[in-house]
Amino acid sequence: MVDDRHRTPLANETPFPEGLDERLREQLTFLVEVDRLKTVLRQSPLVSARRQENDAEHSWHLAMMVVLLAEHSDEPVEVGRTVQLVLVHDLVEIYAGDTPLYDTSAGENQQAREALAADELFGLLPDDQARRLRALWDEFEERSTPEARFAKAMDRLQPLLLNWMARGGTWRTPGVTADDVRQRKAVIGEASDSLWKAGQHLIDEGEARGWSRSSTPR
Amino acid sequence: MVDDRHRTPLANETPFPEGLDERLREQLTFLVEVDRLKTVLRQSPLVSARRQENDAEHSWHLAMMVVLLAEHSDEPVEVGRTVQLVLVHDLVEIYAGDTPLYDTSAGENQQAREALAADELFGLLPDDQARRLRALWDEFEERSTPEARFAKAMDRLQPLLLNWMARGGTWRTPGVTADDVRQRKAVIGEASDSLWKAGQHLIDEGEARGWSRSSTPR
Repeated sequence: MVDDRHRTPLANETPFPEGLDERLREQLTFLVEVDRLKTVLRQSPLVSARRQENDAEHSWHLAMMVVLLAEHSDEPVEVGRTVQLVLVHDLVEIYAGDTPLYDTSAGENQQAREALAADELFGLLPDDQARRLRALWDEFEERSTPEARFAKAMDRLQPLLLNWMARGGTWRTPGVTADDVRQRKAVIGEASDSLWKAGQHLIDEGEARGWSRSSTPR
Repeated sequence: MVDDRHRTPLANETPFPEGLDERLREQLTFLVEVDRLKTVLRQSPLVSARRQENDAEHSWHLAMMVVLLAEHSDEPVEVGRTVQLVLVHDLVEIYAGDTPLYDTSAGENQQAREALAADELFGLLPDDQARRLRALWDEFEERSTPEARFAKAMDRLQPLLLNWMARGGTWRTPGVTADDVRQRKAVIGEASDSLWKAGQHLIDEGEARGWSRSSTPR
């Protein structure tokens, strides 16, 4: 993904008419811009169709998981706020692109690229809302609250479900072993003991069935 | 969309391993099943790509709108609960299909089809969660609370934004006039005076530019 800063917002292609309240115009400009999240492709294969998932679909799916799985959190979490964390957690990828979980080289400058993207994207909003979304994104990245830890756990559990359904999926990425998967997914255990147990069960069973590469000969 | 009841859940294609907690198994079965929402196509064209939007992308977009536009609600709304309403509002379309806003014939048996779909889909969940999601869906449909009225307003405002950006979009549906658009969108005014004013402004301007059909010669 290119990193040409200060792109022209999509909304400029068909500018809103004169006479809209300025604050609302900024909000609508941002809401049109984030349509782009629907075009950021992830590695994960859908269960229901033969294509990759995009970030908007992924974010919606995580939000549904929060609503239904919050009871498994080891610490109490406020569902509404946790949902907001997952809704915004991938927005920066609109400008910074998706960084595959098992791509270590792309991960190197990921933080810097995403921080630049956040400045630009959230900068379309009125200042107070730009700060609010930035704070949500920072909270998610830092996992400094029970809500952020649970949101992150959903972000790791959802592709695990998709990989299970695909009988491998990105577990089959060249060079990746079942132990790599365990290591990347262990963050689920920071939020939920029971979900991490279930996740490990799926990873173990997937390895036993040959859907991922064993680290040591069995 | 066919209406063959009691379909085989997607999760049965790769059953979860033995030993998962039964409640969690039901939750994961439902969460895999709703992957289908990513394949339910709507009429609205994306801003960022030359294709139609799907229901999962649409639901995520509405949730973002709630987070940023809730301040425009005429009555105070709880953001977290309003977000949950939009996350689940289209789930029944997984089995009942999308009913285009300007398709009056398809709208006739819509309610019955969707109620059957709700029974079947939510029935995959543990009983307490099935009841909770059904209650959220009913609340949205009945617009009985400020949250539901605002959620519904977002459901009508979002395609209006996409149509504006497409310089017509579904406003150009054969037989549909600008007054039809105004009538279908007026529900926005039940939730937010300022957003409905802005919506009317976009519809008026679109009509003036020839992006929709005028009811009376100008």
